[in-house]
Amino acid sequence: MKNQFVQPFIDSMSKVLVTMARIEPSTDTPNLINKDLPPADITGFIPLSSPRTQGSLVLSFPQPVILHIAENMFNEKFDSIDSDIVDLVGELTNMVTGNAKGLLDEKGFSFGMDTPTVIKGSGQTISHVGFNGTVVVVPFSTEVGEFYVEVCFKSKDIEQ
Amino acid sequence: MKNQFVQPFIDSMSKVLVTMARIEPSTDTPNLINKDLPPADITGFIPLSSPRTQGSLVLSFPQPVILHIAENMFNEKFDSIDSDIVDLVGELTNMVTGNAKGLLDEKGFSFGMDTPTVIKGSGQTISHVGFNGTVVVVPFSTEVGEFYVEVCFKSKDIEQ
Repeated sequence: MKNQFVQPFIDSMSKVLVTMARIEPSTDTPNLINKDLPPADITGFIPLSSPRTQGSLVLSFPQPVILHIAENMFNEKFDSIDSDIVDLVGELTNMVTGNAKGLLDEKGFSFGMDTPTVIKGSGQTISHVGFNGTVVVVPFSTEVGEFYVEVCFKSKDIEQ
Repeated sequence: MKNQFVQPFIDSMSKVLVTMARIEPSTDTPNLINKDLPPADITGFIPLSSPRTQGSLVLSFPQPVILHIAENMFNEKFDSIDSDIVDLVGELTNMVTGNAKGLLDEKGFSFGMDTPTVIKGSGQTISHVGFNGTVVVVPFSTEVGEFYVEVCFKSKDIEQ
């Protein structure tokens, strides 16, 4: 599935990891079902609202993956999800949204920047209760494991 | 602290529990620091955006508390956080927001209704990374334990 609304978030996530953490992730096929995903240990969430669509972006990481990203970015060893890692997930959520925002502005989907909420806790799964739009889940692979990006959007304007 | 923006959410949470689950919670003093809170096992999150403010509502429950609420609402025994409980937390988030919305509309703070995101996972803590507004944490007590409601808002119009 190539989607004009989702693709900018996939491209931004890859770009942020390559440039900031020297990690070149591979992406699996985006899908509409979030079953069989690795349970996450930390999640960044940001609402995406604009006159043309309403939705959200979720970045969800198992602990080994986010520690690997942090170590590559900061050249420092991390043993657990501490407040620096919480801030990092907030920043990654901001960066991916900011990059994608630029790409989407050009396509006529402009939205304001909200601030991210970060939820720490083991075995996390995410549900969008009562959301009647589209939820696209994009698995990313790194050498230490998988993480995923979820893009939700609600708009008849957006082709799938 | 009595806050014209926060109080409607406190009143709505209490009203929903009394009317739907026959649980009369007591509320502790709202505070601005979310330390020493019981780690939650399930959290409902909803963005609150309006021309006058931007923010979010978070309802965060330890497992025993949400199972107790579910049992009282459905007259049924629940042993774990299954998909019915996930839906319930989404619905509670919606109901509390919907009730508060009515009360806040009268005060001139109107906002649109978004859909809630529910995150399941043990030992949860919530952070609002880079949020330069006010985060008010309201602890609620029930006979089986505490849960909490967090109201975030960013507006110079709102007195504290």
